Amino acid sequence: MVKVLILGQGYVASTFVAGLEKLKKGEIEPYGVPLADELPIGFGDIKIVGSYDVDKSKIGKKLSEVVKRYWNDVESFSDDPIISQGVHLGSVEKLPVEAEGLEEKMTLKEVVDRLVDEWTKLDPDVIVNTCTTEAFKPFDNKEDLMKSIENNETERLSATQVYAYAAALYASKRGGAVFVNVIPTYIANDPAFVELAKENKLIVLGDDGATGATPFTADVLSHLVQRNRYVKDVAQFNIGGNMDFLALTDEGKNKSKEFTKSSIVKDILGYDAPHYIKPTGYLEPLGDKKFIAVHIEYVSFNGATDELMINGRINDSPALGGLLVDLVRLGKIALDRREYGTVYPINAFYMKNPGPLEAKNIPRIIAYEKMRIWAGLKPKWL
Amino acid sequence: MVKVLILGQGYVASTFVAGLEKLKKGEIEPYGVPLADELPIGFGDIKIVGSYDVDKSKIGKKLSEVVKRYWNDVESFSDDPIISQGVHLGSVEKLPVEAEGLEEKMTLKEVVDRLVDEWTKLDPDVIVNTCTTEAFKPFDNKEDLMKSIENNETERLSATQVYAYAAALYASKRGGAVFVNVIPTYIANDPAFVELAKENKLIVLGDDGATGATPFTADVLSHLVQRNRYVKDVAQFNIGGNMDFLALTDEGKNKSKEFTKSSIVKDILGYDAPHYIKPTGYLEPLGDKKFIAVHIEYVSFNGATDELMINGRINDSPALGGLLVDLVRLGKIALDRREYGTVYPINAFYMKNPGPLEAKNIPRIIAYEKMRIWAGLKPKWL
Amino acid sequence: MVKVLILGQGYVASTFVAGLEKLKKGEIEPYGVPLADELPIGFGDIKIVGSYDVDKSKIGKKLSEVVKRYWNDVESFSDDPIISQGVHLGSVEKLPVEAEGLEEKMTLKEVVDRLVDEWTKLDPDVIVNTCTTEAFKPFDNKEDLMKSIENNETERLSATQVYAYAAALYASKRGGAVFVNVIPTYIANDPAFVELAKENKLIVLGDDGATGATPFTADVLSHLVQRNRYVKDVAQFNIGGNMDFLALTDEGKNKSKEFTKSSIVKDILGYDAPHYIKPTGYLEPLGDKKFIAVHIEYVSFNGATDELMINGRINDSPALGGLLVDLVRLGKIALDRREYGTVYPINAFYMKNPGPLEAKNIPRIIAYEKMRIWAGLKPKWL
Amino acid sequence: MVKVLILGQGYVASTFVAGLEKLKKGEIEPYGVPLADELPIGFGDIKIVGSYDVDKSKIGKKLSEVVKRYWNDVESFSDDPIISQGVHLGSVEKLPVEAEGLEEKMTLKEVVDRLVDEWTKLDPDVIVNTCTTEAFKPFDNKEDLMKSIENNETERLSATQVYAYAAALYASKRGGAVFVNVIPTYIANDPAFVELAKENKLIVLGDDGATGATPFTADVLSHLVQRNRYVKDVAQFNIGGNMDFLALTDEGKNKSKEFTKSSIVKDILGYDAPHYIKPTGYLEPLGDKKFIAVHIEYVSFNGATDELMINGRINDSPALGGLLVDLVRLGKIALDRREYGTVYPINAFYMKNPGPLEAKNIPRIIAYEKMRIWAGLKPKWL
Repeated sequence: MVKVLILGQGYVASTFVAGLEKLKKGEIEPYGVPLADELPIGFGDIKIVGSYDVDKSKIGKKLSEVVKRYWNDVESFSDDPIISQGVHLGSVEKLPVEAEGLEEKMTLKEVVDRLVDEWTKLDPDVIVNTCTTEAFKPFDNKEDLMKSIENNETERLSATQVYAYAAALYASKRGGAVFVNVIPTYIANDPAFVELAKENKLIVLGDDGATGATPFTADVLSHLVQRNRYVKDVAQFNIGGNMDFLALTDEGKNKSKEFTKSSIVKDILGYDAPHYIKPTGYLEPLGDKKFIAVHIEYVSFNGATDELMINGRINDSPALGGLLVDLVRLGKIALDRREYGTVYPINAFYMKNPGPLEAKNIPRIIAYEKMRIWAGLKPKWL
Repeated sequence: MVKVLILGQGYVASTFVAGLEKLKKGEIEPYGVPLADELPIGFGDIKIVGSYDVDKSKIGKKLSEVVKRYWNDVESFSDDPIISQGVHLGSVEKLPVEAEGLEEKMTLKEVVDRLVDEWTKLDPDVIVNTCTTEAFKPFDNKEDLMKSIENNETERLSATQVYAYAAALYASKRGGAVFVNVIPTYIANDPAFVELAKENKLIVLGDDGATGATPFTADVLSHLVQRNRYVKDVAQFNIGGNMDFLALTDEGKNKSKEFTKSSIVKDILGYDAPHYIKPTGYLEPLGDKKFIAVHIEYVSFNGATDELMINGRINDSPALGGLLVDLVRLGKIALDRREYGTVYPINAFYMKNPGPLEAKNIPRIIAYEKMRIWAGLKPKWL
Repeated sequence: MVKVLILGQGYVASTFVAGLEKLKKGEIEPYGVPLADELPIGFGDIKIVGSYDVDKSKIGKKLSEVVKRYWNDVESFSDDPIISQGVHLGSVEKLPVEAEGLEEKMTLKEVVDRLVDEWTKLDPDVIVNTCTTEAFKPFDNKEDLMKSIENNETERLSATQVYAYAAALYASKRGGAVFVNVIPTYIANDPAFVELAKENKLIVLGDDGATGATPFTADVLSHLVQRNRYVKDVAQFNIGGNMDFLALTDEGKNKSKEFTKSSIVKDILGYDAPHYIKPTGYLEPLGDKKFIAVHIEYVSFNGATDELMINGRINDSPALGGLLVDLVRLGKIALDRREYGTVYPINAFYMKNPGPLEAKNIPRIIAYEKMRIWAGLKPKWL
Repeated sequence: MVKVLILGQGYVASTFVAGLEKLKKGEIEPYGVPLADELPIGFGDIKIVGSYDVDKSKIGKKLSEVVKRYWNDVESFSDDPIISQGVHLGSVEKLPVEAEGLEEKMTLKEVVDRLVDEWTKLDPDVIVNTCTTEAFKPFDNKEDLMKSIENNETERLSATQVYAYAAALYASKRGGAVFVNVIPTYIANDPAFVELAKENKLIVLGDDGATGATPFTADVLSHLVQRNRYVKDVAQFNIGGNMDFLALTDEGKNKSKEFTKSSIVKDILGYDAPHYIKPTGYLEPLGDKKFIAVHIEYVSFNGATDELMINGRINDSPALGGLLVDLVRLGKIALDRREYGTVYPINAFYMKNPGPLEAKNIPRIIAYEKMRIWAGLKPKWL
């Protein structure tokens, strides 16, 4: 059994819940769930014990009611908690959402205490952060982070940072918990949080779920590097119509995303080929199905130059929703093994920017095999 | 030192020679040569000792003269043998080439004897077969093959099969040699030839050099299979303007190519997703730079369907030419280790249809790491 | 009021019927119907009076029952005739359809008489031919055609040719009718049929409905020709999973299609740029939504070479179904004007291979404006 | 004879000069020059009498010397004036160019007087503005423009606006001249300049030369609108490595470009389909050959949704350079006809944002035919 608490009941989390319900009933195949039914923990063992949001139209509603706004093909819900009010700190600022965070009526210290109290009652093993992409500044050291909370620095802190901090206190109190961060904010990549996690029996997995164009581009680049082809330049555009793309039209939020995405070029190639890789725009009618375009130019033998042009139409939320079905289960396995801090073999396959900070991106297929070995499964091809 | 003999002095072999000359002079970087300068055998250690063709306009000419028809940017040649007359057996039939094979003036048995004699004088370590794609029928057992030569069955045998047979006799006489087959004809995949090789101290590497769209599609499919995405269908077109594409407009030759290419779908995915993968057409102005188009449709989490559309403009001969620089060196290493028969760790990375027959395609990046280990190099990411 | 009779109740005809029903009820917008509500004849004025097929599982069924196999979202049908048995002559030979044509139980002359009798009772203004693509040989002269029917030459004649012949006799008897041919068989391009039409008060519109990649490629080429860019080569692939693509895997049927498609290159450019334009393959899971890939290479100013790579995912039957809503109405208008023979201004916009034989393809947008003028509408931009 | 003066001797102008020299010598075909040799004015009749720039490394150099930095394949130059110092006003600010404008050493009024004097000596018929894209604010009324010059408002005015103002005074003095503006700054679209032109015997042609993705997208959209397909959304990315793309990373400059490009959607479709059309990024190794990606989603008959994904690799400067060969000749023809003000039939085909302000984009092929008629040529298909 894995008890799961959700932070940010938007498109991704709702797809996760909707798909999970269908998996439990055997209505769909576990496509898009990398480890499918290979793990000792089954789909039926995953229980949603709570969910938080700052959208006033969601707070106080049943989970099922919110999920059905996105997917109205789910009949009944095995778990149906009420959505609680969470931390805002401007995370959906400028978006067409009427939002209200706990920090508006109490200090951040009080917010953290309240969350720890509520979570202790709900008793999740795994807390999953699927908030909208937010602007953030890493802390690097633990003391600054703690001081920032203490001093109620609402301008300095992002919602995810406050949640992760609360998760550490909760883990300490409970004797172990997991915080899965699938958005770009540095948690598994922020030494402050990794240290905090180790000291408090927390496991942080992150950062930024590896979906969409970037892991694909990474695998294309590793295809080229094996053949010692020299990559001259890489351009990767993507545009979508969901809230996350709207958030990324904000310069600050876009910047963090750009950083996450760009690091793969150097990590995989071994040199920093000129590249333009960032979320490009918002176009409402595209909805949750983004359009991607990638252009790669490389030098082959005898000075020949080749070109690849890759286009895709990719469902955004299902890609991440499917990974969450694995992540909460792997988180629980790591928790049972008490691997406090962060777990690179999980991050390396499931995250765009795998923590810890000094770790690098490796070709996903290698990461996949290493992750399988970590999970106690047979590698597929090694 | 590796002494190399070429069979089929066309675009691929000429790009190999041209690029090799430039590498020796340090005029180009070793892009497109997977192992670059990592092997103990340097580029300067590769020596071209002979070359064969059936094109009457090439026979009797200097190698340099023929290479310059394709690449006139090479100044001087470190090795410059005269092109000898080889075996035709209809391999360039219907192509705009005036061809004449040795089999027109003697029996196949005499042809084989003559080749063994000539090769013994030239003393190559490695014989590289880069003939134009030909129609063929595998033998499966050695006796049938030998009888076929004996009975001068010119309709039953292809040029490559005769060459590989001669290579076995040559290896036996010399005490070891290598036959590298980068065209689709089954050699490393024909048990008849693998057995013959083992008995005669020959190493056969093959079949069909892994260039172009197919290995790329393989890596895209393995990207999907890792995420447990269900591939609904795969379409892969390619069209080019070189002699090999013209040859493939012939139904018989196209068939063998189709077989080679299609096997990857089942090998990688584990199920036989409906697919259309074959050389599609000939369009002269495209020249040696083919156009490829791939469409893949797959199911992701929660029943969502995604699509990829991949286009590329890829230089055909350089892709294969670069692999040859590795293959002749790895062949020599295998020879020094006396690994007679065929060497799967080499085939698995460098060949579209890696022999032996019972072996399967695995994701190239895994094959790459295993090949490095075989070659005594450190794996890159494992 | 336009009374319509359908020949070949497959995907295209069923989409036409389904969409028409929804248009009549105002359930959908008239997207994909070029002239929408601009014509004096409204959607409600179109009445389906009969339908023919050779599929034994369709003959004798209600139209609504067959349409619902393709589109089960249509509630009620304003017209619901019974499917009658038609002419086969091998048109769906080799396809997974159990077919039986009238010619199996009577001579072609008797078939024609029977059709004329039945049609006279149903009294259609417009007969629409949407049979599966068939192999055919044009007649060129009327006498040969008549003799062929007389002599019951079942091997020489195609189903469409027999239908068109019957349509002429029917028109003569009725005092006017229209035959719309949206498949590649030459009718409007066969002087034999155009002459026959003129003599019998028939109007033939055709050939091969202008949907999909080819008219699009035509417009891209005319974009280039306006700028005096020199087209080096054009490759156009398409692959789909409906019955028509399956039919085109048959070499004979493919050939006719290729001819139709290829003529546009020379017609638009004024020179015959090397091109590869033909239906490429069948892949069942693609269904009615084909994948197309187009590659065009051209020379711009100062010797620069540019490239375009166009991919599309296009619903096949709706594209043609929408054109039929116009064609039956325009056919009726032509009939009221007694423009017997063929009507180039209609063909030029709606057909891939606009008849008569000596006519050429012109850029569609010019054809569009001329067609509007013909139909008594204001041009849009001229 | 047409005497031409160039403003901004960058990539576009240098390609124009290089290609023109080759055309004069018959070394290349007139590909990319829409009217080729159909006009009464031949290539040999075009004479370059002067050129201006603000790049300190270009001022004082021979034209040939600067052109060879971009194209070193031109042997001799029929005209070879010295590059004069022009107006900067921040137009290449932030770019890696050491620039110095005349306005740094004198007032704008003095600059204008000096330009008029110099031009009077050089006596051009046509002044071509090919400066780098600049931020600008239209004037709308002539008085404000004149006051702005008078008051030396260097922050308010852009280089192009000063040049166009000087051109009006020059035309008045000379008794007629042409100003061709192929960058986005509003000249033919600014009523202030059109009025000024009419009063001073100037012809202004503009704005923003119709090259690259946008006119192509326009023609694709008109292909769809003819078929009454409903466009749901349009995304158009492009990225390049020349100075113009670098300039467009500046928000202000990008904005003007976005405006120009976006207007086509509504002009062609008749409704403002959601779209994202703007220059997307700068990637140095792409050089002058930009990568474009277009995604269009539309509704066809019976509610079916189709998709197009278009990629291209397009030489930027040659596309515009080829149009200039026509524009200077058509300008001269308009001058001979004394069509002072602006000439919509020329603008409609050659410009992205055809002036005057109230005019609209029409499908290029219609514009092409109307332009031919204006030029006294036979239409091609009408």
